[in-house]
Amino acid sequence: MAKRKLETCFSPALFEHEANGDSIVVIIDILRASSAICTAFANGAVEIIPVAEVSEAKEYKAKGYLVAAERDGYVLDFADFGNSPFNFTKDKVSGKTIVYSTTNGTGIINLASSAYMTVIGSFLNIGALTEWILGKEKNVLLFCAGWKNRFNIEDTICAGAIAEKLMESNLYTTICDSTIASMDLWSLARPNLPGYIEKAAQRTRLRDKKLDDCIEFCLTSDFTDKIPVMKNGVLVGNIL
Amino acid sequence: MAKRKLETCFSPALFEHEANGDSIVVIIDILRASSAICTAFANGAVEIIPVAEVSEAKEYKAKGYLVAAERDGYVLDFADFGNSPFNFTKDKVSGKTIVYSTTNGTGIINLASSAYMTVIGSFLNIGALTEWILGKEKNVLLFCAGWKNRFNIEDTICAGAIAEKLMESNLYTTICDSTIASMDLWSLARPNLPGYIEKAAQRTRLRDKKLDDCIEFCLTSDFTDKIPVMKNGVLVGNIL
Repeated sequence: MAKRKLETCFSPALFEHEANGDSIVVIIDILRASSAICTAFANGAVEIIPVAEVSEAKEYKAKGYLVAAERDGYVLDFADFGNSPFNFTKDKVSGKTIVYSTTNGTGIINLASSAYMTVIGSFLNIGALTEWILGKEKNVLLFCAGWKNRFNIEDTICAGAIAEKLMESNLYTTICDSTIASMDLWSLARPNLPGYIEKAAQRTRLRDKKLDDCIEFCLTSDFTDKIPVMKNGVLVGNIL
Repeated sequence: MAKRKLETCFSPALFEHEANGDSIVVIIDILRASSAICTAFANGAVEIIPVAEVSEAKEYKAKGYLVAAERDGYVLDFADFGNSPFNFTKDKVSGKTIVYSTTNGTGIINLASSAYMTVIGSFLNIGALTEWILGKEKNVLLFCAGWKNRFNIEDTICAGAIAEKLMESNLYTTICDSTIASMDLWSLARPNLPGYIEKAAQRTRLRDKKLDDCIEFCLTSDFTDKIPVMKNGVLVGNIL
């Protein structure tokens, strides 16, 4: 059988719609949206409704929904909480629907809507995610959220870790320089992941805003076996 | 004195016009446009007129100009030669004006036209280029041409080599993840540069088209001290 294709996209500005109609797209935004989403489902959230506009999030709040909303890392005043995975505790989210508005995330989910399937990836679910992908007969695009359309280190490293697991299976092939580079950067980062992430601009931004308490957690592998997936515009916690 | 800023852009699709009005922009397209341009000036070319359209290149040819023109690596039938640096020999280009149309290059030069100064970088002129940059009091953007708007390995490696020389001077600072990543990839590539470039998709494309004879040359440091620079829409071989 022909090998499946693996590609990596470093920024929403580089995303090619038409190329991914029959691919699994893995959205990676580890500091902090994709880690927060994985944590929410690990802690029993039922679904997450991604919204683009603050006004929309506000309307949901008025209707009684639990709302997670931030801009540039800061919690919006009307929201129940922001973007830290530590906010999505069992007592707050178990059995709940959460409305989620982030700086980057919703635009990216919309971009990927033409994919065969759109799932959320992070270190927190890397093992379950890659196991599941290997069981599908699909091409894969690792879609790094980046920061304001720019390349970022932390999502690239996570993409590299996922890519390595897929390539080791021998089921995938890649002629994508971004994938090669992400695996090479992962090989440099792996021996001391928190140390390597010190180089990332987002590391400094989160420290400056005193939002960095969750970083070590976000770099933890296999905290959960949930694989958040888009279904009819809503994220649910399990593919099946 | 405040340190100067160093940034790297991995693709024309990621280029931010407004950010670079007072920067030196270094255009890097080592396989093969920026290497060919450096070679042309090393071999005595007087100026290079970049043109976007094939029809425009054809008109120049009719007027008697020497024309280098290719699309996807192949020489166009009316042109004198294509994009290999080996075409730009002393006997062909010395004392001449060359009209140059490439797949990527002209669009990128136009993108960078708002910069304080736009120069052409490659391994072939890396020493002279970085020496000259260090003597200026300017921010720097390393602008990788990429391939069809995608990230590519070869330009990133060259950007990393340039970035390393600039950062070693202690005159520059960077909070740009692309710059950090390019230096890290360069650290992996440097011990065996031709071996590392084997990973690049462009390496395979050039091999498939039998256009890869010049790659080793394109990876050679300090073949020339020319620093091609844009002046009034035309490339000239020396900044002064």
